[in-house]
Amino acid sequence: MIDYRLKVGILGATGAVGQKLVARLAHHPWLEVTTLAASHRSAGRAYGDVVHWLDAAPLPAEIAALPVVAAEPPLACDLVISALDTGAAREIEPAFAAAGYPVFSNASAHRMRPDVPLLVPEVNADHLRLVERQPYGAGFIVTNPNCSTVGLVLALKPLADAFGLEAVQVTTMQATSGAGYPGVSSLDILGNVIPHIAGEEAKLESEPRKILGALAGDCITDDPVTISAQANRVPVLDGHLLSVSVRLSRPAGVDDVRAAFAEFVSPLADLGLPSAPARPLALLAPPEVPQPRRHAALGDGMVVHVGCVRPCPVLGVRFVALVHNTIRGAAGAAILNAELAIRHGLVAPRAAAPEREEVSLAAFAW
Amino acid sequence: MIDYRLKVGILGATGAVGQKLVARLAHHPWLEVTTLAASHRSAGRAYGDVVHWLDAAPLPAEIAALPVVAAEPPLACDLVISALDTGAAREIEPAFAAAGYPVFSNASAHRMRPDVPLLVPEVNADHLRLVERQPYGAGFIVTNPNCSTVGLVLALKPLADAFGLEAVQVTTMQATSGAGYPGVSSLDILGNVIPHIAGEEAKLESEPRKILGALAGDCITDDPVTISAQANRVPVLDGHLLSVSVRLSRPAGVDDVRAAFAEFVSPLADLGLPSAPARPLALLAPPEVPQPRRHAALGDGMVVHVGCVRPCPVLGVRFVALVHNTIRGAAGAAILNAELAIRHGLVAPRAAAPEREEVSLAAFAW
Amino acid sequence: MIDYRLKVGILGATGAVGQKLVARLAHHPWLEVTTLAASHRSAGRAYGDVVHWLDAAPLPAEIAALPVVAAEPPLACDLVISALDTGAAREIEPAFAAAGYPVFSNASAHRMRPDVPLLVPEVNADHLRLVERQPYGAGFIVTNPNCSTVGLVLALKPLADAFGLEAVQVTTMQATSGAGYPGVSSLDILGNVIPHIAGEEAKLESEPRKILGALAGDCITDDPVTISAQANRVPVLDGHLLSVSVRLSRPAGVDDVRAAFAEFVSPLADLGLPSAPARPLALLAPPEVPQPRRHAALGDGMVVHVGCVRPCPVLGVRFVALVHNTIRGAAGAAILNAELAIRHGLVAPRAAAPEREEVSLAAFAW
Amino acid sequence: MIDYRLKVGILGATGAVGQKLVARLAHHPWLEVTTLAASHRSAGRAYGDVVHWLDAAPLPAEIAALPVVAAEPPLACDLVISALDTGAAREIEPAFAAAGYPVFSNASAHRMRPDVPLLVPEVNADHLRLVERQPYGAGFIVTNPNCSTVGLVLALKPLADAFGLEAVQVTTMQATSGAGYPGVSSLDILGNVIPHIAGEEAKLESEPRKILGALAGDCITDDPVTISAQANRVPVLDGHLLSVSVRLSRPAGVDDVRAAFAEFVSPLADLGLPSAPARPLALLAPPEVPQPRRHAALGDGMVVHVGCVRPCPVLGVRFVALVHNTIRGAAGAAILNAELAIRHGLVAPRAAAPEREEVSLAAFAW
Repeated sequence: MIDYRLKVGILGATGAVGQKLVARLAHHPWLEVTTLAASHRSAGRAYGDVVHWLDAAPLPAEIAALPVVAAEPPLACDLVISALDTGAAREIEPAFAAAGYPVFSNASAHRMRPDVPLLVPEVNADHLRLVERQPYGAGFIVTNPNCSTVGLVLALKPLADAFGLEAVQVTTMQATSGAGYPGVSSLDILGNVIPHIAGEEAKLESEPRKILGALAGDCITDDPVTISAQANRVPVLDGHLLSVSVRLSRPAGVDDVRAAFAEFVSPLADLGLPSAPARPLALLAPPEVPQPRRHAALGDGMVVHVGCVRPCPVLGVRFVALVHNTIRGAAGAAILNAELAIRHGLVAPRAAAPEREEVSLAAFAW
Repeated sequence: MIDYRLKVGILGATGAVGQKLVARLAHHPWLEVTTLAASHRSAGRAYGDVVHWLDAAPLPAEIAALPVVAAEPPLACDLVISALDTGAAREIEPAFAAAGYPVFSNASAHRMRPDVPLLVPEVNADHLRLVERQPYGAGFIVTNPNCSTVGLVLALKPLADAFGLEAVQVTTMQATSGAGYPGVSSLDILGNVIPHIAGEEAKLESEPRKILGALAGDCITDDPVTISAQANRVPVLDGHLLSVSVRLSRPAGVDDVRAAFAEFVSPLADLGLPSAPARPLALLAPPEVPQPRRHAALGDGMVVHVGCVRPCPVLGVRFVALVHNTIRGAAGAAILNAELAIRHGLVAPRAAAPEREEVSLAAFAW
Repeated sequence: MIDYRLKVGILGATGAVGQKLVARLAHHPWLEVTTLAASHRSAGRAYGDVVHWLDAAPLPAEIAALPVVAAEPPLACDLVISALDTGAAREIEPAFAAAGYPVFSNASAHRMRPDVPLLVPEVNADHLRLVERQPYGAGFIVTNPNCSTVGLVLALKPLADAFGLEAVQVTTMQATSGAGYPGVSSLDILGNVIPHIAGEEAKLESEPRKILGALAGDCITDDPVTISAQANRVPVLDGHLLSVSVRLSRPAGVDDVRAAFAEFVSPLADLGLPSAPARPLALLAPPEVPQPRRHAALGDGMVVHVGCVRPCPVLGVRFVALVHNTIRGAAGAAILNAELAIRHGLVAPRAAAPEREEVSLAAFAW
Repeated sequence: MIDYRLKVGILGATGAVGQKLVARLAHHPWLEVTTLAASHRSAGRAYGDVVHWLDAAPLPAEIAALPVVAAEPPLACDLVISALDTGAAREIEPAFAAAGYPVFSNASAHRMRPDVPLLVPEVNADHLRLVERQPYGAGFIVTNPNCSTVGLVLALKPLADAFGLEAVQVTTMQATSGAGYPGVSSLDILGNVIPHIAGEEAKLESEPRKILGALAGDCITDDPVTISAQANRVPVLDGHLLSVSVRLSRPAGVDDVRAAFAEFVSPLADLGLPSAPARPLALLAPPEVPQPRRHAALGDGMVVHVGCVRPCPVLGVRFVALVHNTIRGAAGAAILNAELAIRHGLVAPRAAAPEREEVSLAAFAW
């Protein structure tokens, strides 16, 4: 049991994902936001004065009053969650790790480093052990994947386990919140589709191979699945929809695939992580769902919805998956990673702290 | 040379495609709308009083004044173009053919009949000869494909010719005008994507095989290409966007595919068909195009735009295609089919008509 | 205290407002949906089989299983809430009242009848007494206003009380959910504004005069305020936004108006009505709010948000008001009216019921 | 007759209005774009390389190849059209005027200067004579109004002439293109309305008074009409819609107002200005029009559409007006102003030029 709250610093707190972190941590049982870091331009001013707050629910007054600080160690917190841009993350995140902070990052900068876990806790919690290889002492970096990748990997996981994966073809229809704020101009996207998102296809084709890969010793061997991704931006606010076709290693009918989805339960159930849904996948039956506006936020935005399972004449089976891109695909993902690490005793209060009962790393199937 | 105008009756004239036919035939050099047919409910009233006119350009007053008649032969016209619902088309279109009328239909009811041409003139003009097999005497039925199929087939044609096709994976993002009027409710589609369009995937998987098929004697042998289609509705007004991946029979690089697109010219150029663009395919170079709102209506809505050609890790090559669904994919398609048949001398004025010079069916590569 | 649940029948249960009633009553402390009535066409089938469910949250299974019945008395319930079309409401609602049922109606059919309360409980709860004049015995009809009217009247109420109203100019920008389902076609509203909603302006110009009117004896004298309304449909899902200018009877500056808004508290606070917010008006300070997508659903959709208070060169003062049209403007309004009537002892279980403590009509400031 | 083409420099050529100027001047009979000026950041690079081209119709290759130059005199052109931001316009436009260039500006910086014409040629062409008061020698500044003002003033002009204006209440629903590119973020406007546009209401309340004002000697006396404006941003691409209520000086019924709209013809008809429509106002009869997506671009975007004329209980009469904001409200407005000045002989080729027949300023009713 965790009977105290750890102090969180948010790096990149004024951006769209940074705001989502602020909003979701407002009532977190284990975590308390104490520090909001952003660019030097904003430093020194009250958060409420520099942020263009996007959420419908109003910004809590006590958070609005916090002063923004520069994103440099040391900060008055026990861990940092990073919503930095990739460019900024490249140097700032290692600096925090080197200064002894656990860093839970949504940025892509370090995702593919061999010693950095690219984590979706329900899929590859064991990869967390990679942090032992990192050169930072008490500090470390844990990353979550690209927003579309999270949805794809959670949907693929039960199929990989039951049938094995050979090839995946995915076409994404992605919400504009995925591009941050101000992000996509209304002049580009109103009544339109943009068949290109810079860098997105490469991430979708590489990240799942690492996440689904096997940890042997302290190395990950990528899963050999071949992935082809086509990314599109659509005039939707939240929720990335994925049309997926899969060639499985072992023959499986549509009913087998539906059963694999329906029976998938979180392997983390015993850990009591506050953000982890009991069932991270929800299989919907009607033919015209899931739909981003209607279903992305269900399950507190942490559940990936799948549906439209049917045979694919080319690859074997196809389906549709939906992920809330700024929650399960970004802010919620980073928080869940932090919760997993806390549960495994990897995050300590930086000053004297009460004794904690914890699941040891060793005990957790490593 | 065609130096007179044939009289056209439009079946289903009050629907969205029927209106598009009315609008596009307002200034056609060969065709003149004389008869507007719709359901018995509308019959007897002025067209302008029963139609919910959708186009920005106002309904011409002389067309607005035309009385709506029931969709039953005889009608005072030389040919009919049908924008009927599938259900209505099933019996009404053969009735007109049996009464001696050439019928150019956008409905799906008779598309897959072995003796009915499913025509995209730049792709399979020779299939027009199938009408000789029909049991109707002077009358006959010619169909155009589903709106998405037209875009897919025009993009695939140069690849089929140059490299051969083995397998195609296509995900569509389709405009709401494809569902007619009132069609898709705003409550369903505003800020949303619907991953299902009834019947659409089956059409996209079967129609191209017939269109790309070979005519031998008076039978068509379907092309053996395997197609997998996933259809989505997006909040776009006009223009279906297709993410396409292809496995070719003979190896081809991205540059080969681009060249095949760029060099494709209409085989109909010599026929002088009023609606036929010189280049039915336009290859766009920037990475973020084509886009439905910006490009669907270019080339008078009759040009399919392709772009985003890049390697596909699973099937070999992928690209994006865009078709204006109510023009090249429906009204313009039916009109172009009519133009082709007229050029081949298959449509005669029903009363005494002036002599006409015509390209004989025999001469046209049959 | 109400320590039992009354049985509710919903008339017009398959429509958009009917569904909203079903959704909002799923966990109501005083009310329990037992009967779903709709047209003869749907009668006899399970609700889940005939409804096109619009809410993101799934339809509860026990409600889905309820059989739809025809909208005719008798029904197995203690009261009915009507989401019928105006046409149907005209005869059906009096039939239920005559059969002894309390009818809480969202339809416009009987709103302007001199003996029917047109109720916004925070504004004119005393009008409820009009039911005593109705010729139905135990049954009666209570109505709530048009969706835009609710927002306008709640915003005007503190100004009427503090300064008196002479003239009001209001331009509405209304969400498509106000037109029901399927309602507004996507072909009409995507990227567009429609400057006309049939019948809407007349309702906005007349209903507030009755609601703000004074009850003397058993007659209402309309408030003499003059109202001009211009109604527009915009591509928004939920939330009607109103640009309002007001000429007050007594001079008032912008700060006076802001204070009147800010200080307005519900006169119903002591009644403990489950759906009544403590503060039915929320005054927002930033210049660019309220906004329908961001604020309409705050306060459980029952709070009207006002902002942008500034001087009006023509009428004196202007501001913006926002109302959730299907909740505070329809389903929630009818439920709140039912709660008020229940609290006043006007609704009894139709069979033997436990004793109830109740606020008598007399006691409630009448 | 103008039998030569003047060379145009565009200031602010890379912005949204600058692009619209480029597009509309591509085939202008009197004007030829020779010079594209923008910020120092873009200077020296090819226009096609620095512009994010927004129009559907592709950027002409010869324009794409033009080098961007800094917005400083001298430039190789006979006149400049300015699409600069207000801040930049404040100093740059006078610098060009002082250097002898006629400046036709869409910026607001100098609109209210007593010696600068704020011109809508069909309304106040005589105000052009104000340029004689300017201190620049051969150069001068002419401005066009705010995009919404143009629509309002053109609709008010026939009413002012026929009945006199006392008070105007206008609520705008403005397209996102009015904010330039990237302008309004999709995260702010998708499915939403923003009831605030910085500075817009003040412009709408003051500019029409100057435009409708009387020129006496070389001074303009503002029209005494009182205007109240409420501005809203809606998810529409092009076309500002205005709900207008008017109190007239002399009594007028709805039919009188309709007649005044219907009979309004351009007083410029004899001048043969290429961009001037014969009828700058189009009165639409159906109750649900004009609509921005359907009607804004009709009449080449230069015609203001009015409709929904009906009595206003508060001010007397009300109606709806629609203006294409980037054409009649910006780029087209500046071009039309330039055409008027050219026709009046105020713009000369800077080097030796052919003799020109011209309408003298004196002859034109001054």
